[in-house]
Amino acid sequence: MREQQMLDAAVRTFGRRGYMAASMDEIAELAGVSKPLVYLYLNSKEDLFTACIRREADALTRAVRAGVRPDLPADRRLWDGLLAFFAHTGEHPDAWSVLHLQARTHGEPFAAEVAAMRTEIVAFVTGLVVVAAREAHSDPDLPEDEVAGLAEALVGAAESLAAWANATPGVTARQAAATLMNFAWAGLGDLMRGNRWTPPPEAPQGRGEPRA
Amino acid sequence: MREQQMLDAAVRTFGRRGYMAASMDEIAELAGVSKPLVYLYLNSKEDLFTACIRREADALTRAVRAGVRPDLPADRRLWDGLLAFFAHTGEHPDAWSVLHLQARTHGEPFAAEVAAMRTEIVAFVTGLVVVAAREAHSDPDLPEDEVAGLAEALVGAAESLAAWANATPGVTARQAAATLMNFAWAGLGDLMRGNRWTPPPEAPQGRGEPRA
Repeated sequence: MREQQMLDAAVRTFGRRGYMAASMDEIAELAGVSKPLVYLYLNSKEDLFTACIRREADALTRAVRAGVRPDLPADRRLWDGLLAFFAHTGEHPDAWSVLHLQARTHGEPFAAEVAAMRTEIVAFVTGLVVVAAREAHSDPDLPEDEVAGLAEALVGAAESLAAWANATPGVTARQAAATLMNFAWAGLGDLMRGNRWTPPPEAPQGRGEPRA
Repeated sequence: MREQQMLDAAVRTFGRRGYMAASMDEIAELAGVSKPLVYLYLNSKEDLFTACIRREADALTRAVRAGVRPDLPADRRLWDGLLAFFAHTGEHPDAWSVLHLQARTHGEPFAAEVAAMRTEIVAFVTGLVVVAAREAHSDPDLPEDEVAGLAEALVGAAESLAAWANATPGVTARQAAATLMNFAWAGLGDLMRGNRWTPPPEAPQGRGEPRA
């Protein structure tokens, strides 16, 4: 109970003031406990920050999973997942700041904690895209590389949009989810129906060579 | 000339070893100059890193702009811009690591340098989306908020895919650009034609309330 209060205060402080500027004094005061108690529970600022990242990463992945009902069609699952994601990041802007910004801008071991969460979310989205492709029948052989790329694109788009939505007054979770769904599903939907966009013939200057 | 050599060595070292682990000794040795000379030109590790970010941010935005011919139709411009982006990030993986990862994971003032580049690229992409909407006629009144959201989504997707493409053997710039174009254009294309994805009715639990 006390630990949750301290973590609440820490997430708020780290999210608003940044990892470097946040002080243990401030966190203890906001939590209404003494500073030695914070250290007793959570050892150091680094450990406290790591505990915040773990708790919030877990809460976010659980919120997204809980939003998605496996018995619904693929587009509905994607919509529900996006809505749950934007609702959670919008309702917990400090937590999202910790995960998306703070945890990635202060080196290891924090970046690795967030990378693990991201891997889990990409795997979850990859599963959604694979099921969508299976449901669509017309293109069951969407190459594995392309599915992985689509999932990375979708997760990157969602991360970017969540930061933008939180920074833009008046944008609701529903609007952010609808923007991305319009972007993603109409695109994925066409792709699943086998309607590909056709690139122009390869340019002569050798762009698009295999990478070193 | 000497300064370019030092910056080349610094980008390579920061990109591969990370900002914290990179040493001025290593950079001087790789550049084939003495360590005092590096300090003479570039003052401190912080200043050297900032100079790397500025040079590489400038090179990337110039490469994307140079890839896009304003007289071509919107889908072709988007494709050319994406191809230029993935070709540049694929040919300069250390520079992309500096911009996408290192510059964002070591706090200020570095994060602000990258944020400025990102703002410029988002503005450029926003312009492409607005022109595409204008060309499409059918939906000239795409709301400003939605255009901004689409541009953020597209840039986030591209960033995420570039990191994935560089980490995945055998993925070419052309493949990465085609994956994103299939995703983005078919989606944007439908949107421009007024074919929106329709969300289910609002859930009773109040998701999607305006943000605080």
